[in-house]
Amino acid sequence: MTDTTPEQLDRVLDAAVAAAGVLRDRPPAERAGWLRAGADALDAAADRLLPLAQEESRLPPPRLTGELKRTTFQLRLFAEEIEAGAYLHAVIDHADADWGMGPRPDLRRMLVPLGPVAVWAASNFPFAFSVAGGDTASALAAGCPVVLVAHPGHPRLSHATAEVLVAALEGAGAPAGVFALVEGQDTGRALITDARITAGAFTGSLRGGRALFDLASGRETPIPFYGELGSTNPAFVTGGAAAARAEEIAAGFAGSMTLGVGQFCTKPGLLFVPADSAIPGLVVERLRDVAGAPMLNDRIRSGYGSALRTLASHEVVELLEGTVDPDDDPTPTLLRTSAAEVVADPRPLTAEVFGPAALVVEYADDEELLAAARALDGQLTATVQADPDDQVVPALLDVLAERAGRVLWGGWPTGVSVTYAQQHGGPYPATTAVTTTSVGTAAIERFLRPVAYQDLPEALLPEPLQDANPWSVPQRVDGALPR
Amino acid sequence: MTDTTPEQLDRVLDAAVAAAGVLRDRPPAERAGWLRAGADALDAAADRLLPLAQEESRLPPPRLTGELKRTTFQLRLFAEEIEAGAYLHAVIDHADADWGMGPRPDLRRMLVPLGPVAVWAASNFPFAFSVAGGDTASALAAGCPVVLVAHPGHPRLSHATAEVLVAALEGAGAPAGVFALVEGQDTGRALITDARITAGAFTGSLRGGRALFDLASGRETPIPFYGELGSTNPAFVTGGAAAARAEEIAAGFAGSMTLGVGQFCTKPGLLFVPADSAIPGLVVERLRDVAGAPMLNDRIRSGYGSALRTLASHEVVELLEGTVDPDDDPTPTLLRTSAAEVVADPRPLTAEVFGPAALVVEYADDEELLAAARALDGQLTATVQADPDDQVVPALLDVLAERAGRVLWGGWPTGVSVTYAQQHGGPYPATTAVTTTSVGTAAIERFLRPVAYQDLPEALLPEPLQDANPWSVPQRVDGALPR
Repeated sequence: MTDTTPEQLDRVLDAAVAAAGVLRDRPPAERAGWLRAGADALDAAADRLLPLAQEESRLPPPRLTGELKRTTFQLRLFAEEIEAGAYLHAVIDHADADWGMGPRPDLRRMLVPLGPVAVWAASNFPFAFSVAGGDTASALAAGCPVVLVAHPGHPRLSHATAEVLVAALEGAGAPAGVFALVEGQDTGRALITDARITAGAFTGSLRGGRALFDLASGRETPIPFYGELGSTNPAFVTGGAAAARAEEIAAGFAGSMTLGVGQFCTKPGLLFVPADSAIPGLVVERLRDVAGAPMLNDRIRSGYGSALRTLASHEVVELLEGTVDPDDDPTPTLLRTSAAEVVADPRPLTAEVFGPAALVVEYADDEELLAAARALDGQLTATVQADPDDQVVPALLDVLAERAGRVLWGGWPTGVSVTYAQQHGGPYPATTAVTTTSVGTAAIERFLRPVAYQDLPEALLPEPLQDANPWSVPQRVDGALPR
Repeated sequence: MTDTTPEQLDRVLDAAVAAAGVLRDRPPAERAGWLRAGADALDAAADRLLPLAQEESRLPPPRLTGELKRTTFQLRLFAEEIEAGAYLHAVIDHADADWGMGPRPDLRRMLVPLGPVAVWAASNFPFAFSVAGGDTASALAAGCPVVLVAHPGHPRLSHATAEVLVAALEGAGAPAGVFALVEGQDTGRALITDARITAGAFTGSLRGGRALFDLASGRETPIPFYGELGSTNPAFVTGGAAAARAEEIAAGFAGSMTLGVGQFCTKPGLLFVPADSAIPGLVVERLRDVAGAPMLNDRIRSGYGSALRTLASHEVVELLEGTVDPDDDPTPTLLRTSAAEVVADPRPLTAEVFGPAALVVEYADDEELLAAARALDGQLTATVQADPDDQVVPALLDVLAERAGRVLWGGWPTGVSVTYAQQHGGPYPATTAVTTTSVGTAAIERFLRPVAYQDLPEALLPEPLQDANPWSVPQRVDGALPR
């Protein structure tokens, strides 16, 4: 891996600006073709890409095969989404002399691409959150060229994926400069502060993401920065559920917290259980059946060990199972504290530990459970294991919906489906942009901005705002919702 | 005007947090009733409010009457908008075992209120961008309590308006704490950095707005800050239009730049004309017919004089009409430079001058016109006076749509109608949040965030996400757009 030079970056950015000008005028259907070409080419290159991914990420083949499938599915879903045209949010208000506040002119509003976007790849999803992952797919779908900062954890895979993607995009008619891969921490900093970049998207650590957010916000011209910085993903077991389904809950939690060696931003890191519950013991039993496995890279393993030791050294935390000194194949690890302690000192006890460890939090009663839930910072997900009749449920759901982007009932948060309704976001520190999602079709909107046209002749209006509606996009006309 | 004490602010914020909890669970139809009650009460209090507004703002009665009408119309339009329910963006994905990337769970997503919002009033619209103005209306419509920082330019009107609004809201059933007025610069800084505030909205100067944006972004928990910081609002006259409609264009421009003594964020401050055009001379003639009038307050007048002198002292700027030393009733003032100079040194020549002054920019040919347009920073509006057949038009519209939130054809930018398609925003420094608008029904979305629910039992889902759809809101179901 060689850092991109400032001169190379300058050329990449000039090409991205030129491409942005071309993309702005192309219909979504054409961009959809580029996205599908990219998906087809990546699928066709599976035999070349998967071994590289396995070698560099140490992740098992079935997981990587599934992840590549998810990645190309996502490109195709986004292609479909932009073809449907609703993402443009076309709104037409015809001139109205009788408008309530006084005569109104003809006003027409739609969303247009922001311009060149900087995307940072993550290490833990070498396909789905990397070169051709969600941020790239949504920015391209929006019509924005992408400058992708490769993750140093999988450099060869990154280059190979970029090569396949660029060839496919350009082969399908996309302009040169629509996608480029760059490398290096300094390059990343130069990128987010460059005037040619109009937005940033990032998945990774709180520290790295916050540093980039601060750079993006501190620019002479601040730009949106969509950082997904991680989460502890609390799970809450009510008394009723603990009594009725202890075995099932323990098995589900143990599976979710160790999936992918705990290296998911949605890994449940906190399990709230009634103080007398058998669940912690049952989780320990299940964890003993989970074989250790290598982590993505040494840096992540060392960060895991460090975060784990910090948590375990808190005087109110007890080690139930595993080890705080993870070796090459870290043993799943479970710790324990009480809800009263979480209320007293929430931050250190609920900080993310990225790896196969979790903290059981025992609570005395529903009041204590709610108090602990209220003490939590923003989360990507929050999970409830309960029976619908449990008294605490409505209040608990309210508290969690305030703090999390996704609230689950009876399942586990790992495994984030790419759909229309998916929400992968949440209040800080889950993300730096609480009004957005980085997974699901709504992710496209992050890279668009509204423009209104006043009294333009029909022929000069962009197609989605013309009365003739040549692209057949949904239009809201004079307040009537599209149909 | 007395600054709010820290203790008072603390109580206000606690009440806002309590109100947020109540608002979250009330249906939009109920909130719509509160908004309408507020509008009715403000209309009924016109005889009390208008004289105060006139006295404190020095604006003429017809303008203030129209502005109050706009303000109450806006509250009612937003009430209608939330009743329709589309603003919730309800999306339902039923569980699907055959979903392309693998089985998906039941996922349902909607927008929910952010929580207590801080709003800064502006001086130049004592009704429409003040206590009960656009930001207040959109935050309340979204379901967010508002803590409003009064503008010191109209303290008595602010208190009177707040009194009417609070009585109406609480009389209609809104919880205490749903709205509060606070005062003072230190109070504003304390507010935007308080953990209980979830977003800020501001209309005012670049300097003041940027300072608040920096505080909001620099928090331990950053929050969205929607700052509308002003604009120079360039207007472009093509050769064809200059030849065909010089008189009409000159009259329109002179009227727009002096409307409200030039104290609008949409005041056109730059007029691009062909080098040989009669338009500058015709504008001068028109300006001579415009009587001087008092500005909003001494601080604004002094800021106007200072910005005007800075611009006029640029060695490439010539005074065509008026004075750079404005007295109590500033004379409309016109200056002149060339497009080549704007390209050479854009920032100082295109900075906003808030008041009845504008800069004529003469261009040699279409290339120079486009180059000057490309040199501009982000703008709220950009105006084109052209004939549809002018060769430069398509390229000019492209350049302007990249730089402005609203692009006008043949009209003038002052007068911002509140409609579904309105866009009052734009790239920085027009605003700090390029993806949003502060006027029009879309302004409501600034104060909402998405939450997804996974596999929740129907009875525990929020009403907009239930299959039974008791509130009859538009729902996107399994990808099919709402109908």
